Amino acid sequence: MTEKIVPLTDLQIASKAKMLPIWEIAKNAGIPEEAIEPYGRFKGKIDVTKLPKKATNGKVVLVTAISPTPAGEGKSTVTVGLSDALTRLGEKTIVALREPSLGPVMGMKGGATGGGYAQVLPMEEINLHFNGDIHAITTANNALSALIDNHLHRGNDLKIDPRRITWKRVLDMNDRALRNITIGLGGPAQGVPREDGFDITVASEIMAIFCLATDLDDLKERIARIVVGYTYDKEAITVRDLGAQGALTLLLKEAFKPNLVQTMEGTPALIHGGPFANIAHGCNSLIATNTARSLADIVVTEAGFGSDLGAEKFMNIKARHGGFSPDAVVIVTTVRALKMNGGILKENLSEENTEALVLGLPNLERHIHIIKEFGIEPIVALNRFVTDSQAELDVILTWCKENNIAVALTNVWEEGGQGGIALGKEVISQLNRTKNFAHLYNVNDTVENKVKTIAERVYGANEVIYTDKALKDLAEINRYGWDVLPICIAKTQYSFSDDPKLLGSPKGFPITVREIIPKLGAGFLVCLTGDIMTMPGLPKHPAALNMDVDKDGNAMGLI
Amino acid sequence: MTEKIVPLTDLQIASKAKMLPIWEIAKNAGIPEEAIEPYGRFKGKIDVTKLPKKATNGKVVLVTAISPTPAGEGKSTVTVGLSDALTRLGEKTIVALREPSLGPVMGMKGGATGGGYAQVLPMEEINLHFNGDIHAITTANNALSALIDNHLHRGNDLKIDPRRITWKRVLDMNDRALRNITIGLGGPAQGVPREDGFDITVASEIMAIFCLATDLDDLKERIARIVVGYTYDKEAITVRDLGAQGALTLLLKEAFKPNLVQTMEGTPALIHGGPFANIAHGCNSLIATNTARSLADIVVTEAGFGSDLGAEKFMNIKARHGGFSPDAVVIVTTVRALKMNGGILKENLSEENTEALVLGLPNLERHIHIIKEFGIEPIVALNRFVTDSQAELDVILTWCKENNIAVALTNVWEEGGQGGIALGKEVISQLNRTKNFAHLYNVNDTVENKVKTIAERVYGANEVIYTDKALKDLAEINRYGWDVLPICIAKTQYSFSDDPKLLGSPKGFPITVREIIPKLGAGFLVCLTGDIMTMPGLPKHPAALNMDVDKDGNAMGLI
Repeated sequence: MTEKIVPLTDLQIASKAKMLPIWEIAKNAGIPEEAIEPYGRFKGKIDVTKLPKKATNGKVVLVTAISPTPAGEGKSTVTVGLSDALTRLGEKTIVALREPSLGPVMGMKGGATGGGYAQVLPMEEINLHFNGDIHAITTANNALSALIDNHLHRGNDLKIDPRRITWKRVLDMNDRALRNITIGLGGPAQGVPREDGFDITVASEIMAIFCLATDLDDLKERIARIVVGYTYDKEAITVRDLGAQGALTLLLKEAFKPNLVQTMEGTPALIHGGPFANIAHGCNSLIATNTARSLADIVVTEAGFGSDLGAEKFMNIKARHGGFSPDAVVIVTTVRALKMNGGILKENLSEENTEALVLGLPNLERHIHIIKEFGIEPIVALNRFVTDSQAELDVILTWCKENNIAVALTNVWEEGGQGGIALGKEVISQLNRTKNFAHLYNVNDTVENKVKTIAERVYGANEVIYTDKALKDLAEINRYGWDVLPICIAKTQYSFSDDPKLLGSPKGFPITVREIIPKLGAGFLVCLTGDIMTMPGLPKHPAALNMDVDKDGNAMGLI
Repeated sequence: MTEKIVPLTDLQIASKAKMLPIWEIAKNAGIPEEAIEPYGRFKGKIDVTKLPKKATNGKVVLVTAISPTPAGEGKSTVTVGLSDALTRLGEKTIVALREPSLGPVMGMKGGATGGGYAQVLPMEEINLHFNGDIHAITTANNALSALIDNHLHRGNDLKIDPRRITWKRVLDMNDRALRNITIGLGGPAQGVPREDGFDITVASEIMAIFCLATDLDDLKERIARIVVGYTYDKEAITVRDLGAQGALTLLLKEAFKPNLVQTMEGTPALIHGGPFANIAHGCNSLIATNTARSLADIVVTEAGFGSDLGAEKFMNIKARHGGFSPDAVVIVTTVRALKMNGGILKENLSEENTEALVLGLPNLERHIHIIKEFGIEPIVALNRFVTDSQAELDVILTWCKENNIAVALTNVWEEGGQGGIALGKEVISQLNRTKNFAHLYNVNDTVENKVKTIAERVYGANEVIYTDKALKDLAEINRYGWDVLPICIAKTQYSFSDDPKLLGSPKGFPITVREIIPKLGAGFLVCLTGDIMTMPGLPKHPAALNMDVDKDGNAMGLI
């Protein structure tokens, strides 16, 4: 019997990697010892009040991707590999990523720490609990819920209408049975009966706030502004009305310190905050990005899903709020994902098919167009998979060159930073050019105009339809004067449209806004389009059922 | 205007204390550097696999108390102060405590880290999130719930009866509105509708298991044995049937390492695990107690509520399972609490009232009797409050001497370890005597006999009544052969009886068992008596509303 050669899993590769003590990573990043609080030997939290001030802030490289497919594009992997390549090229670099949510880890997606030889470490601890930030957010969110229901139960002085409470409970879990529930059952001692539901924690407004707040005072002030529901007279009730902002901020004070870890090649990594990009803004915390910029010359960061979601929100929400703009943008694409966008099923992706690839190219083209709308010339990272044929790779490389798009082949999964050197060089050359960044809309414009701008210039839609519910929401938002906030569109990640089945590069479709939810703490208006889940479900065979741990504490089955 | 002298709060005293780095505490405790994983500068987790083996295990001092009253007895404070006193007396001592639950911290009770100059530090971090253990338990508990509901939703191969699922979700929160809920509403894509409810995390069977497991393999095996519900044919369904024990144990692997912190005087403290003593067994983790015993000569530990709850379960469940017995038992009492047991209202406790005190003494007498039932001569710690008169203190001291009971006055809140020296000396003298410990019942006896033994010999009841539901449960337990497990009675902490209003030392009352819940993972049968809440509620003015944090991260309003 001959032995079959099985490639190592990400967890196996990660387990074999040699990590540097967190003190050394901190030192390499320019973080003084007194500013680091160790969490174990290889993780730390940064007390940003103890950091030195650098004269100029580092430049920001945003990594985005084409429309995601089940084939996987490797955006986090390229982000990590690019940061290692820049380190190899002598640039003082930090990578800033989002924290993985346990829901997808236990469900289907697996971890979010890169892959192969382009991972952040310690992989298993980052994927499970990490330093407890998401648990602190869950706790703060649900403490607010308990205080609201206790207020109802204790006489309801604020006259909150139990039918109009918009604040939901959360768990960091994929748990569809909690989407729609009734609570407070069982008689007068058990609270006030009402409809409720659980979202996944990364969909909590507290997560969005956590990722946009600049310091603890700003965090508290934003939490105070959260609208939790409405009175019988339809007046908004905020956290300030309940007096809970102090306690909720106290629950978040340790979590709010950015987490320091390392890539497999020793590049410092800040992993902090992680809102979903389909229902929220999808970027790591602003405080982590600001901290990374204050320490390094180049900060490589990513935004969730494709450029229509994460990158658009990075530019129009996070960067606007943070007072900066990206200095370079990388769009990750793969042969496989473009073939899927060209109509090929996942099970047939290993076969060479340049025709399908060509059919999928308009998806990449549209993502390039979106980045150019912001005045930035993107760089395409063609992330190589072992099944790609040279002919297929050539289709994309040639197309980019013909269209005057910077492109680099990456092979970071297999080679680590070495596989990202070509991309690193393209990025450095882009950083040296002058940029011409512009937001797509002025926040003081009307809600309709702001949504129209995103729908037309980013998605390629030709019409925005508002349901009656959305029109009612809009009227209320205008009445309150909340219309001057940026827009955060909740949309499927699979299509530029609000129909997840419209792959490739659809054009001239309508976008339907079903509902508009004011998130005053986060400071944006969420426009729900299509059927966006704020609480995912588990698949038939959840990833959790493959997981195990041995008697010495070694993890198994994490992907 | 003259300035009023306001005593410092526990948080203020804690904030002024100078802590030793965790490395030094570890060194003092005999923990090699490679076995410590720091969590910040002043907390750590212990990798017990890297500890040296000591020839003999340390002796165990159990601190229990009279029946708790709203006046507060200071059991944790005496436990901490006693450990500091023993350290001052030259004994190599470690104190082992339970982790505070956030529910009571945000609700009414406040923290559980001692008080005054007898506290464990860092007080605010221990009271908020600590090292994330309870969050990990919440996550493991709810991951199991999500897997159960996903199983129902995905075809229900195991034929689980949705009406007979006994596994509930949990949050570490006081949230009465979640006691009785309906889930899975909203149509076929949103799961299977059924009744459910949330308990507080410290009531989770996973918490109980966590506190009784000896290592990761034992933890996994116990989790596998948990009964989550029954099929349509009334056959038990376990975690093993669902195949989830590996993932749940993986989620707990870091949490399962005991936490090392310090008292205000630098005595090493292991704070790990924290089941409630009214609904579970109410002691810190066995792995922490075992670890402390392997490092120190004396381990001071506490059990929840009075000796009828925590101490009885410590002896009959934890110590039995751990293969040891306490070498000394301290019963904490106060003048105030005995006056309340003598019929005085809380608002009148500051007035001298030796008559009421005498009326309350039978409560202390009964707790002494309970400890003697186990073959141990207890030591009474009379924990001094500033309002106590000398005449009142003398009533108790004299009574103890007349009855040949060892007694010591403690003043640890004000003086730290120095205020516990007299108690420390009594404890050391007790440790040098031979002991004559015996469990109250044989586990192989019938359930009825075991319950009768506890009811009569511990509570002073004269009859055990079983409801029809309890009799049905008993028949099922006998059918499955689960009757050979120890008994964990869920009972009010305020009275020896199952009626919280029967203070003092009632006798000749009936105990009604309403329901018997097999906890096969924890390895005991929970007998519910009276109306025991597994999910507390918040008071009219929750403690959370007094909490705040300043821009530098300093906590305010924690009690």
